[in-house]
Amino acid sequence: MADENPPAPLPPPAALDDVVALRDFEPLARAKMRRPAFEYYAGGAWDEVTLAGNEAAFERYRLRPRVLVDVSTVDTSTTLLGRRVALPVGIAPAALHGLAHPLGELATARAAAAAGALFCLSTVSSRSIEAVAEAAPDGPRWFQLYVRRDRSFGRELVERAAAAGYEALVVTVDLPVLGYRDRDRRMRFDPGPDAYGNLPAREGFAGNFDDLLDMRSVGLTWDHLAEIRSWSSLPLVLKGVMTAEDASLAVEHGAAGVWVSNHGGRQLDRVPAPLDVLAEVVAAVGGGAEVYVDGGFRRGPDVLIGLALGARAVFTARPFLYALATAGEAGVAHAFGIVREELERAMALLGTPTVAEVNRSCLAS
Amino acid sequence: MADENPPAPLPPPAALDDVVALRDFEPLARAKMRRPAFEYYAGGAWDEVTLAGNEAAFERYRLRPRVLVDVSTVDTSTTLLGRRVALPVGIAPAALHGLAHPLGELATARAAAAAGALFCLSTVSSRSIEAVAEAAPDGPRWFQLYVRRDRSFGRELVERAAAAGYEALVVTVDLPVLGYRDRDRRMRFDPGPDAYGNLPAREGFAGNFDDLLDMRSVGLTWDHLAEIRSWSSLPLVLKGVMTAEDASLAVEHGAAGVWVSNHGGRQLDRVPAPLDVLAEVVAAVGGGAEVYVDGGFRRGPDVLIGLALGARAVFTARPFLYALATAGEAGVAHAFGIVREELERAMALLGTPTVAEVNRSCLAS
Amino acid sequence: MADENPPAPLPPPAALDDVVALRDFEPLARAKMRRPAFEYYAGGAWDEVTLAGNEAAFERYRLRPRVLVDVSTVDTSTTLLGRRVALPVGIAPAALHGLAHPLGELATARAAAAAGALFCLSTVSSRSIEAVAEAAPDGPRWFQLYVRRDRSFGRELVERAAAAGYEALVVTVDLPVLGYRDRDRRMRFDPGPDAYGNLPAREGFAGNFDDLLDMRSVGLTWDHLAEIRSWSSLPLVLKGVMTAEDASLAVEHGAAGVWVSNHGGRQLDRVPAPLDVLAEVVAAVGGGAEVYVDGGFRRGPDVLIGLALGARAVFTARPFLYALATAGEAGVAHAFGIVREELERAMALLGTPTVAEVNRSCLAS
Amino acid sequence: MADENPPAPLPPPAALDDVVALRDFEPLARAKMRRPAFEYYAGGAWDEVTLAGNEAAFERYRLRPRVLVDVSTVDTSTTLLGRRVALPVGIAPAALHGLAHPLGELATARAAAAAGALFCLSTVSSRSIEAVAEAAPDGPRWFQLYVRRDRSFGRELVERAAAAGYEALVVTVDLPVLGYRDRDRRMRFDPGPDAYGNLPAREGFAGNFDDLLDMRSVGLTWDHLAEIRSWSSLPLVLKGVMTAEDASLAVEHGAAGVWVSNHGGRQLDRVPAPLDVLAEVVAAVGGGAEVYVDGGFRRGPDVLIGLALGARAVFTARPFLYALATAGEAGVAHAFGIVREELERAMALLGTPTVAEVNRSCLAS
Repeated sequence: MADENPPAPLPPPAALDDVVALRDFEPLARAKMRRPAFEYYAGGAWDEVTLAGNEAAFERYRLRPRVLVDVSTVDTSTTLLGRRVALPVGIAPAALHGLAHPLGELATARAAAAAGALFCLSTVSSRSIEAVAEAAPDGPRWFQLYVRRDRSFGRELVERAAAAGYEALVVTVDLPVLGYRDRDRRMRFDPGPDAYGNLPAREGFAGNFDDLLDMRSVGLTWDHLAEIRSWSSLPLVLKGVMTAEDASLAVEHGAAGVWVSNHGGRQLDRVPAPLDVLAEVVAAVGGGAEVYVDGGFRRGPDVLIGLALGARAVFTARPFLYALATAGEAGVAHAFGIVREELERAMALLGTPTVAEVNRSCLAS
Repeated sequence: MADENPPAPLPPPAALDDVVALRDFEPLARAKMRRPAFEYYAGGAWDEVTLAGNEAAFERYRLRPRVLVDVSTVDTSTTLLGRRVALPVGIAPAALHGLAHPLGELATARAAAAAGALFCLSTVSSRSIEAVAEAAPDGPRWFQLYVRRDRSFGRELVERAAAAGYEALVVTVDLPVLGYRDRDRRMRFDPGPDAYGNLPAREGFAGNFDDLLDMRSVGLTWDHLAEIRSWSSLPLVLKGVMTAEDASLAVEHGAAGVWVSNHGGRQLDRVPAPLDVLAEVVAAVGGGAEVYVDGGFRRGPDVLIGLALGARAVFTARPFLYALATAGEAGVAHAFGIVREELERAMALLGTPTVAEVNRSCLAS
Repeated sequence: MADENPPAPLPPPAALDDVVALRDFEPLARAKMRRPAFEYYAGGAWDEVTLAGNEAAFERYRLRPRVLVDVSTVDTSTTLLGRRVALPVGIAPAALHGLAHPLGELATARAAAAAGALFCLSTVSSRSIEAVAEAAPDGPRWFQLYVRRDRSFGRELVERAAAAGYEALVVTVDLPVLGYRDRDRRMRFDPGPDAYGNLPAREGFAGNFDDLLDMRSVGLTWDHLAEIRSWSSLPLVLKGVMTAEDASLAVEHGAAGVWVSNHGGRQLDRVPAPLDVLAEVVAAVGGGAEVYVDGGFRRGPDVLIGLALGARAVFTARPFLYALATAGEAGVAHAFGIVREELERAMALLGTPTVAEVNRSCLAS
Repeated sequence: MADENPPAPLPPPAALDDVVALRDFEPLARAKMRRPAFEYYAGGAWDEVTLAGNEAAFERYRLRPRVLVDVSTVDTSTTLLGRRVALPVGIAPAALHGLAHPLGELATARAAAAAGALFCLSTVSSRSIEAVAEAAPDGPRWFQLYVRRDRSFGRELVERAAAAGYEALVVTVDLPVLGYRDRDRRMRFDPGPDAYGNLPAREGFAGNFDDLLDMRSVGLTWDHLAEIRSWSSLPLVLKGVMTAEDASLAVEHGAAGVWVSNHGGRQLDRVPAPLDVLAEVVAAVGGGAEVYVDGGFRRGPDVLIGLALGARAVFTARPFLYALATAGEAGVAHAFGIVREELERAMALLGTPTVAEVNRSCLAS
């Protein structure tokens, strides 16, 4: 009977001050952004089974809270490839922050740096490698690389990133071609040729979005990794690994990090949630590299599930993009404030005062 | 909170040019077709548990994408009973394409031939065996046979099909009687006596739909297959096999193909999805015949799941019928364009540049 | 996209001629009956978890259709306790058919007899034992007994039933007290003291419904069964057995039939669906008695699932009550016509031309 | 078809007399209470996955009703730590009953005492330890303790509780910090500094709700339990244990009772339902202490599931708070009347005339 007269929903957040959870940013961003740009951020590939599955996967995991542990001090910090970060939560690479806010990656990177969190800059950024570095010179930052037909262009990008103080090279391996994205096709999404901070029109790139991301002719394989590693001394992270087999190959080919991801549900549909293959990948890596994960992480307890399954850090992008659209740098700073408070409370409640104590025993089998 | 103010749905496709997925054709077809005819296509038997289950079954399978494989060239072609086809996706036999478009099977077959895809003509077609062959003389085509009381009539059909260049005989084995179809009973569906391209009124058939499909008195059994095979030199495919036992019997009785199908949910309700019995059937066949499957295939990744489970090709009918209703031959051609692009992208993203590489290791257990 | 503009639902049945499935009777009955009486029929106990679970359980079972079996003749008949019946589907005992139609059980029993189906008369009937026997003298019929405080009254009922040609005694064992039924409490349901055909006001019964069914002080136990059996020579069926332990006890105590039932979800809530304990009960009975089942059977394929799990017959009550409310005897006759046609088609499609061939191998494990 | 024209829902309860189930109180309370106070009662932490999961967990358990057992007398009484109570259902500690009704805990405790049921008073009560004892001097009552920075204050509370006849000390161990509660943040819930019956403003407590419950600096661990036990001779119950490991530690540290709870979904999110860890805890305790459970118990059959899994008693709070808001002491008395009748009927239907007979064999595996 109680369901027949349900209460009016609580008032949705109308301003930054009302935002209490990362998901609150989404409707605020939707109200501010141009529709095709919002759908580009929000959407996934094909029927978005994978997109929905990423968040739904958390339902299969349950945390086992331990009690009467001393949690008077909780330390959320960890190290990533040797660099200390204040949070085990970073901003995953995402294209074109400028669609959300005029300052684009400058604002996002600044807020991440202020929070002591890792920021990953996309090849397909609205702002240049150098401009982002200048905006947040002290923040930990990695550069994400898409390899294109014109191999020399990739080399230039890597050299620029190394020179600008980026500390690792994240090579995306799950985009040999762009996923089939219904929303973008319905919206005929195209940001235009002037949207790209790192990619002035040049040989092989006419400023067309599909062309930009169509990597088909590259034929990137494991054999090319040695060449890519030779372009700089940056440690290599492979982003988009979803199987034990590829995780083993990644370690064999010298990867310092293996990033479990299905590209936020934007590439192949009907693949597992990253959460569901994390244990398989961690076992295959066997300590030979750090393991990261993205896909559906939205709340403090979600982060703990990712860490308990063996990830060293978790990443997410959409919530930060929506925060950026909502209120620029202040929005992203507010988002990090929520992440920090949620994580501190969740760690205290799990009985794990340090990140290192979050392990497999924290999960119900 | 994000759910309280959901965005307006994306605009539904209003014209062929807006169609980006096979499912888009359904509302367009619904708007164009007479209601009883549309319901006849769309419906299933009894409570349509099986109908819904066919699509829902895909949720139980997940693809394992491999990365850094050279997919600069993707080849979607394969062979079916020795004949090369451009796609591992064919048009399953379906009655009365004329309900969708005046040109009926002429248009569907032409579009399939242009795409290099296999077309199966139903016994209960709107256009004759010979007319369809003339319309698309070079396309790969099979003929589907319903055996009726009047056995000599079946023989005539088979002889006509062989003479007209059909390359295999698909005997439907799951229709000893018509399924109990609520929708058709509610709609009092009857296409009328003039609807049939191959079945002029004759002894034993008064042009009544129920009568047409009521095969009860035939009593078709395994013992009749030898006689049917004797009517022509065409290889025999048995369509509607759902158990390992019958798959073994099919091979014993000389079937060149075993087609796993529950007739699109239109015959017995509360049976498994074809996807869920495919592994059992493939194991029982043991390489003694080719295995095909239909039931709920709508997107590129769906096709890959079917192939990974051991099917040599997958078939589907409703999406092509809706495409035919939407825009005739151009609609079906557009549908094949989508199938091809989705499949190419999905194969690249799975890391399988050829159809032969899509196997059981591509699926999460 | 296809879901955004769903078709208008098919027109609901407005008259008996439009009824194509048993579930169609429910809205027709609802429109005709007084609300408290309809809710009394429709409702279950507590949160109706069991009520909903009975129908939902069918989702866990899948039939394995065999093909190329000779089903030119399908025989739906079977025997129950040695008596041949035309269908393995009977009318389960239900109180007060007079709430549905003035002729009450007279009409229901007549239609069952005409269909050759078994009719079970409830102790709490609107019409008397003798009147029902006279109305349908040739139909197979069983009498259901509630034992009350006044043991002598039960003996009289049994003697009357035996004299009137009822062929078995169905003792309900799952009603030591009435279930806690929210709907009846909300509706303050009470049919009044004159509603009962077999129970004139007498010592120990003041005509109050709660009092009628409150058997608490009886304390009926296994030890009383010998006495009850001594009242007549009728074979004994125990209705309401839900465990292997009680099934074994039933056989030990001389039951000729064990009826798996949770009383249509009207007694204890959060118990299994009968379907889910049927295998356990059949194994415990081990051929020592016939096993019957009720609970959620609505369609031909449902019946086959019950038979495949080992039931000799399935029973149902609500659909027949709704048919009775819709159109009296003609309604129930129409219902049996549907049952027969659905069952014949389903048996043909399963490849089982006789009831005896429907066994465990017909179910996917 | 039956779903297309569903009946109007039954009329919701408008007054106490219409209330037939505990859930009926919720909409009545919602209509009476201030919104932030209602949301404080109703809400959980983060996304309320745990809150919803507590009730949903019951779906995974099924009772096995035994028949022909003598249930002419049903005894719902049991003992808790040696004290006889009329029901195995008690009122769990909950903050600030004064938000529901001016008399607050005085009314709740009186109704519990009249029903012979156990009442647990929260540290954060609206009425003082002594006032509640005076209001219901004969009722069984326990005192729930939150340990705060100022350890001497806890000692005073325990001494007052012992002096006022509370019979056990329930130490909550799952609140080292307050859970992250979206609803309270959206509502900016704060009951104000005068809301607390036991906590006059004093050193270390300024009357702010967050401050009150922020136990972070306490660092309460297993080592402090000996000191807490030394403050009185009351037996110790640890509330909030969710793992076998902590259950074993509780027994080692002298707990007389282990209370399985996730704090009604109000602390860490994404933890199991208490029901789902009950067997694990009972096994670990191994008879060394009594085991209790709370979380989602609403109906008589729910209680039996908890008992069958090994709990000696089950507790619940929200339904009693809503009953209190609806009609004060009379509301809570009505709630207990429902609990008693539901439990008596459910025990009779399960075939277990005493609480002791409800054991693991009553559950389907």
